[in-house]
Amino acid sequence: MSKARGEKVWYIPDGFIPPTSAAGAYESHESVCVLNTSTEEALLKFTIFFEDRDPIENILVVCPGRRTRHIRTSSLSHEGTSIPVGVPYAIEVISDIPVIVQYSRLDATQAENALMTTLGYAIK
Amino acid sequence: MSKARGEKVWYIPDGFIPPTSAAGAYESHESVCVLNTSTEEALLKFTIFFEDRDPIENILVVCPGRRTRHIRTSSLSHEGTSIPVGVPYAIEVISDIPVIVQYSRLDATQAENALMTTLGYAIK
Amino acid sequence: MSKARGEKVWYIPDGFIPPTSAAGAYESHESVCVLNTSTEEALLKFTIFFEDRDPIENILVVCPGRRTRHIRTSSLSHEGTSIPVGVPYAIEVISDIPVIVQYSRLDATQAENALMTTLGYAIK
Amino acid sequence: MSKARGEKVWYIPDGFIPPTSAAGAYESHESVCVLNTSTEEALLKFTIFFEDRDPIENILVVCPGRRTRHIRTSSLSHEGTSIPVGVPYAIEVISDIPVIVQYSRLDATQAENALMTTLGYAIK
Repeated sequence: MSKARGEKVWYIPDGFIPPTSAAGAYESHESVCVLNTSTEEALLKFTIFFEDRDPIENILVVCPGRRTRHIRTSSLSHEGTSIPVGVPYAIEVISDIPVIVQYSRLDATQAENALMTTLGYAIK
Repeated sequence: MSKARGEKVWYIPDGFIPPTSAAGAYESHESVCVLNTSTEEALLKFTIFFEDRDPIENILVVCPGRRTRHIRTSSLSHEGTSIPVGVPYAIEVISDIPVIVQYSRLDATQAENALMTTLGYAIK
Repeated sequence: MSKARGEKVWYIPDGFIPPTSAAGAYESHESVCVLNTSTEEALLKFTIFFEDRDPIENILVVCPGRRTRHIRTSSLSHEGTSIPVGVPYAIEVISDIPVIVQYSRLDATQAENALMTTLGYAIK
Repeated sequence: MSKARGEKVWYIPDGFIPPTSAAGAYESHESVCVLNTSTEEALLKFTIFFEDRDPIENILVVCPGRRTRHIRTSSLSHEGTSIPVGVPYAIEVISDIPVIVQYSRLDATQAENALMTTLGYAIK
C-alpha cells in the first residue's frame, strides 16, 4: 500500500484553449496533470468556471493508482457540453483522495511554440 | 450556496507590460486571473507598486459569484492614472472574500510569442 | 554548520522529454533543480510515474552540501531503465534531509525555444 | 504605517544566465523581483550556490519601503565576484523584514524569446 499524497481540492484560475495551431510538430493544447501516488484509484470531479455564463459541473475523470494522467482540457465534457476554444475560463478539480495537480499550456498559434506551467492552488 | 475558496490577500512581484507587439494573432498583455467560487460577488482592491514612485492605490474591480475574471493589467486605473508600459512594477490584490489569483504574461514583442504564468503569493 | 532548508518529499506531475531538437544553440531537455543548503550531503530517491505502466523506482542521486544540482531527467535510470522520450510522466523526489526542488523544461523542437518552470509541490 | 507582508527567507533553485542574446528588442536576463509592502526599507542578503564550487555569500541589496525592485542577477556581486554566465546555480534571499520574491528568466538566445517565471520558495 502506498500513501495518497497531496490535497483533494485544487484550482487553476487561468484556463484558455488557443483556438488555432500553426503547421508544425505540436498542436496547441492545455493539460491538467494529475499524480496519484496511492494504490487506490482517484475519482476526479472537474468544474469549469467562465466569465459570462454558468459553470459546467460534474465532469468525471479517473486516475488509476500509482499512475499519472495528463488530461487535455479539450477532452473534458459533461452531457455533450465541452469547453469552448478562445474563451477565458478557470478550473476546479476535486478528488476523493489526495492527489497533486499541475497545469501546463502549449500555445502553437505561431510557428514557434510558447509554454507555461504552474502547480494548481491546493486548499488545505 | 457555494463556499468561497482561497485567500483574501495576494501578491505578484513581477509585473511588466511589454511596450510593443509584432503583427500577428496576439497582442502583448498581462492578465490577473481571479476565480470566485462563492455565490457572492467579490470586491477586489488593487495596489500597484513601482521602483521609483509612490503606489497607485484603490483600483476597484468586481468579480461576480461563481465566475472567473481574467483582468488585463492595462485596463486597471484610478482617477485617470494607469500602469505605464515598459516599467517594472508589482501587484497587490485584496478581496473582501476568499478568491484564487494567478498571473500570466504573453509577450508578443517578437513575431513568435513567449508565455509565463504563476500563482499569486497568498497571505494566510 | 548550515541548516537544511525546505522539505523531504516533492512532486512534479508534468514531466515530458521532448523527442526532438531543431538545429540551434540548445537541446530540448528538462531539469530537476535541487538546492541543498546544509553542510551535509543529501541522498535523493526518484520515482517516475507513467500513465500506462508501473513506476520506475529507486533512482538514486546525490546532492553535495552547500551545492545545487540541476539534474537532467534524461540522465535518470535504474538498472538500465530510463525515461522514454515523448511520453507523459510524473516525478517524485524523496530526500533524506530537507532540500528545495524546482522543475524546468526547455523545448527546442522548433527553431525558437520555449521555456517553462515551477517549484515542485512540497509535502509538509 | 503599512505592514510587511510575506516571508524573510526565499529560495530559487534554478538560476542560469543565458550566455548570449540574438539581435532584437530584448537582452537575455534573469530578474529576482522583490516586493516590500512595508514603509520600512528591506535589507536583502543574497547567497549564490553552485554545482562545483563554494557559494558567493553576503551580496547586499536594499529594497525601499512601499516599492518593488526587479534585480538583474548579472548585477549581483561581492568583492568583485559575480555570477558567471552559462552555469547552473541557485539563489537564497534573506531579508530583515518580510518581503515577497518572484523569479523570471527571459531567454533571447534565439531571435524569438522564451519566458519563464515562478514564485520563490518561502520558508515559514
